[in-house]
Amino acid sequence: MKVVVLTGGVGGTKLVDGLCATLAPEELTIVVNTGDDFVHWGLTVCPDLDTVMYTLSDLADHERGWGLRDETWNALQMAERYGGEAWFRLGDRDLATHVHRTEWLRRGERLTAVTQTLCSALGVGHRVLPMCDAPRPTLLRTDAGDLPFQEWFVGLRAAPAVAEVLYGDPAPTTPEVSAALDDADLIVLAPSNPYVSIRPILALDGIVDTLRRTQVIAVSPIVHGAAVKGPLAAMLHDIHGCEPSARAALARYDFVDLAVIEHGDDAAIPTVHTHTVMRTRADRIRLAQTVLEAAR
Amino acid sequence: MKVVVLTGGVGGTKLVDGLCATLAPEELTIVVNTGDDFVHWGLTVCPDLDTVMYTLSDLADHERGWGLRDETWNALQMAERYGGEAWFRLGDRDLATHVHRTEWLRRGERLTAVTQTLCSALGVGHRVLPMCDAPRPTLLRTDAGDLPFQEWFVGLRAAPAVAEVLYGDPAPTTPEVSAALDDADLIVLAPSNPYVSIRPILALDGIVDTLRRTQVIAVSPIVHGAAVKGPLAAMLHDIHGCEPSARAALARYDFVDLAVIEHGDDAAIPTVHTHTVMRTRADRIRLAQTVLEAAR
Repeated sequence: MKVVVLTGGVGGTKLVDGLCATLAPEELTIVVNTGDDFVHWGLTVCPDLDTVMYTLSDLADHERGWGLRDETWNALQMAERYGGEAWFRLGDRDLATHVHRTEWLRRGERLTAVTQTLCSALGVGHRVLPMCDAPRPTLLRTDAGDLPFQEWFVGLRAAPAVAEVLYGDPAPTTPEVSAALDDADLIVLAPSNPYVSIRPILALDGIVDTLRRTQVIAVSPIVHGAAVKGPLAAMLHDIHGCEPSARAALARYDFVDLAVIEHGDDAAIPTVHTHTVMRTRADRIRLAQTVLEAAR
Repeated sequence: MKVVVLTGGVGGTKLVDGLCATLAPEELTIVVNTGDDFVHWGLTVCPDLDTVMYTLSDLADHERGWGLRDETWNALQMAERYGGEAWFRLGDRDLATHVHRTEWLRRGERLTAVTQTLCSALGVGHRVLPMCDAPRPTLLRTDAGDLPFQEWFVGLRAAPAVAEVLYGDPAPTTPEVSAALDDADLIVLAPSNPYVSIRPILALDGIVDTLRRTQVIAVSPIVHGAAVKGPLAAMLHDIHGCEPSARAALARYDFVDLAVIEHGDDAAIPTVHTHTVMRTRADRIRLAQTVLEAAR
């Protein structure tokens, strides 16, 4: 079975980790949101790609929830002396990732190729693909203006209410993503924020059409009326006036065949109920297996 | 008395430190070689400017002889995993300097302004000026080809014999350097390598003419037939077939009025003999005072 998973931040990456423990590299392709990417200190930072890469290489800091384990912050300290922007905390080891990615992009390499180089160097065996090669920032229309995601989420601690999410003009995905989706027997939507992790991928040309032709399973990012992590519950309320629920979170995915949701939650489409909160690595693997079994 | 000092690497910077302890900011301008500057990991690295800046802000690592004290090397370790070039060791705190300088240059700021910003942030009160704003790499013609300085010195450990040093086409200095030199009562050549630290500055348009009109004192970088540090002794031999001596090191400075040299050494021009090796901060200050007294 050929599987493609669409994912964004920390929650989705946990399921991706479980899928990688269950499927061989030739069976799984990971397509990652790049709508949160931004330029910081002149460097191209790709938070979701890095979360996936650091998690799959077992370098991620699980306690902090982002970045690298055993990280140090000496460049950041020095940057603060220089009056550099310090609202987004770049660690020293993490900085090497952004410096090298930026340099390779500047030399004309595609983000797809750069991501492959970084992942290979860290021993990630499964294929990690950015959703597209060109920058395509997701903008949040808020009462404090139109803001890129990181500026709103990290810089302003997600305080301004979001009225609308803007995904930009039509744009292509990559040949690699297109081919992987065309070839897929199953497409999984990881339990990531629909607005800022999954929708930016779906907004690319042709993706939804492919999803309509393929078996799609979505794992709910809402559990018992709350997001496990992140701003989704508030966004559901502010953007669509919904009380946060699995039903609301999955409502706008009209191409999904099956929803995997928490015991006690419900959705408007066929569902599989299971325990969806992933606290341990075993939880990740078990949920991945549940998704794959539901597809068979 | 208005003083300008021309300097390059570690040895010259020790005298600069002594001059800064002796002269007020309005009495001293420091003009620094940028011929060793290069791009590494896509970042603009200015080794001599940084040596001056870190020394004057008392952040330099005196034991290692370059870079910052209490430095860490985690970005470098990560870079090595990515297959990044590791022959030039960038520390984590140092990296913040290069990242911010690169970003500001890319936005169109002049190196002169960027250097001012960095120095001010670190509390350097005296004016530090790059010799010019545009890149102007010194090239060493060696039996291994034409090499930029750092690649030869650090990358190849100064092993290939140098036949000739190339300073590039005529180019202007900056308005700031021109004005400081025109205004100077005394110009000091710090005990830096003439080939790769001082000559790159002298090779800029109009500098030597100004030196001919002004009192110039040179401090010998050769002491009892040896360079205190660095490749000068071998370069004197390989380029000009000279046994290393203060006389040889100063021979091609035909605009120098007075040489400050070690007891027992000699030169072809009027000399002041003193102890020129700077092991302690007191040595730096004493030598600076000797130079200034010789000028009066």
